[in-house]
Amino acid sequence: MDYTQRINQCLDKVLSNQGSLTEAMRYSVLCGGKRFRPILTYTVADTFGANLDQVDSSACAVELIHAYSLIHDDLPAMDDDDIRHNQPACHKRFGEAQAILTGDGLQALAFEVLASDNQLSAVVRIDMLQALTQAAFEMAEGQSIDLGVVSKIIDVNTLKDMHQKKTGALLSCAVKMGALISDCNAKDSQALMHFAKNIGLAYQIQDDVLDVLTPEEVLGKKQNSDAEKNKPTYPALLGLEASKVEYENLYRQARNNLQALSVDTEKLQALTQKLQSRRF
Amino acid sequence: MDYTQRINQCLDKVLSNQGSLTEAMRYSVLCGGKRFRPILTYTVADTFGANLDQVDSSACAVELIHAYSLIHDDLPAMDDDDIRHNQPACHKRFGEAQAILTGDGLQALAFEVLASDNQLSAVVRIDMLQALTQAAFEMAEGQSIDLGVVSKIIDVNTLKDMHQKKTGALLSCAVKMGALISDCNAKDSQALMHFAKNIGLAYQIQDDVLDVLTPEEVLGKKQNSDAEKNKPTYPALLGLEASKVEYENLYRQARNNLQALSVDTEKLQALTQKLQSRRF
Repeated sequence: MDYTQRINQCLDKVLSNQGSLTEAMRYSVLCGGKRFRPILTYTVADTFGANLDQVDSSACAVELIHAYSLIHDDLPAMDDDDIRHNQPACHKRFGEAQAILTGDGLQALAFEVLASDNQLSAVVRIDMLQALTQAAFEMAEGQSIDLGVVSKIIDVNTLKDMHQKKTGALLSCAVKMGALISDCNAKDSQALMHFAKNIGLAYQIQDDVLDVLTPEEVLGKKQNSDAEKNKPTYPALLGLEASKVEYENLYRQARNNLQALSVDTEKLQALTQKLQSRRF
Repeated sequence: MDYTQRINQCLDKVLSNQGSLTEAMRYSVLCGGKRFRPILTYTVADTFGANLDQVDSSACAVELIHAYSLIHDDLPAMDDDDIRHNQPACHKRFGEAQAILTGDGLQALAFEVLASDNQLSAVVRIDMLQALTQAAFEMAEGQSIDLGVVSKIIDVNTLKDMHQKKTGALLSCAVKMGALISDCNAKDSQALMHFAKNIGLAYQIQDDVLDVLTPEEVLGKKQNSDAEKNKPTYPALLGLEASKVEYENLYRQARNNLQALSVDTEKLQALTQKLQSRRF
């Protein structure tokens, strides 16, 4: 079973008993998505020989945080996107109020899943919860900055900081959780953090580029929506070609970071390659 | 220093470093509020002789969850209330998008504050986080049920279940966290849970009654707003007098629950009395 099947099965199991919110949660979480964050957690943990049964809760938790953020980002008051994963966004299907509450409930559930995993020691769970709560906070703050700079001219460092919070923090956290389960040494852990930071930023710049280049049916959401909303993006600031060069450089650096690890990095190298060549 | 001063100082300290969300968070959290939930946590912990320095994080966490829920509840898509604590609601002051994100960030921050309290063992923190994440989830679910039954005729048991989730879960959690810090025995813990359940429901029925009876300037929000929104409430279902009898009975039961405790319950009795006689 590959990581995607594994996370989908775990999410399906977790999302079965949420009362009046179950339907909207299942609709929004199980409809698809690349599952890149949990795959990252699994791949890091697997690379260091962890028991994957102990990784399921953190993989689910990070994906549930991601899913909640998409539901809230799509709201009319936020990015106002009607389509997500090739289906009506949560608020189009269930109404705005239920979409807000579905996101709120998913955030609580993410932390609950992690806090309740008796397979992990309390110390490991606390370390992971510290990482995930901080990342979830930064993500909200990044989105807040993003909405604050619409139609404004900002420099590339401000954009980078915003991207780091909005997308990078949760990606880095996905890597960190894989490292925390594996109990890897300090040197490996540090190399992984550099790796995480580089792919986190690369991923978001690439998202900006794909938003411009990819047709709606492949993207699963509206094409060129950033520009239409006057959002500052890498392509808008640096141009399309320079943005491509930028994210390819970051992926290269990320692959270099992996070479510093004391273990076989084949799976992480392959994942990085797969990310770099993604089309949506 | 009384508990209200203590929690206000703690919240003031916690809310100082949230980047672009700091201002909206301080505006919404520090503007007032009865602080009943953290006071409950302090009072329970104090009753069992806990060191109050170890109670600050859970007291803050429970109040931050409460504060986030008020911000989201007030949104136009939800209860659409413009006034909260005698000032414009968060979304009126900062816009809907920032209000959503302020709530989202406060939820993450609540769990982070608790997860990061090094004065507490990892085991105690995990027990508390399990309780608080579950309560936060139930609160969102309760609000989801509430919005789903607007203008519908429901029976008193459905209303009770909804109130238990919407308000009771977090109140019970506030008591539970006080008990968890104090490491009180199983018998005391059970009596406290009965106490918590009774005041949780009493508090919400009383809220329904006060919503009808209390003028806006005392309530700090719009009077009679439940009825205007066709929300099912105890007064609507049972009548005003029967609702009063109901919540007074529940407070009486709560005081009886306290008599089963093995410690001096003077502070908890006084708090229950104070709650029962509140005007808003």
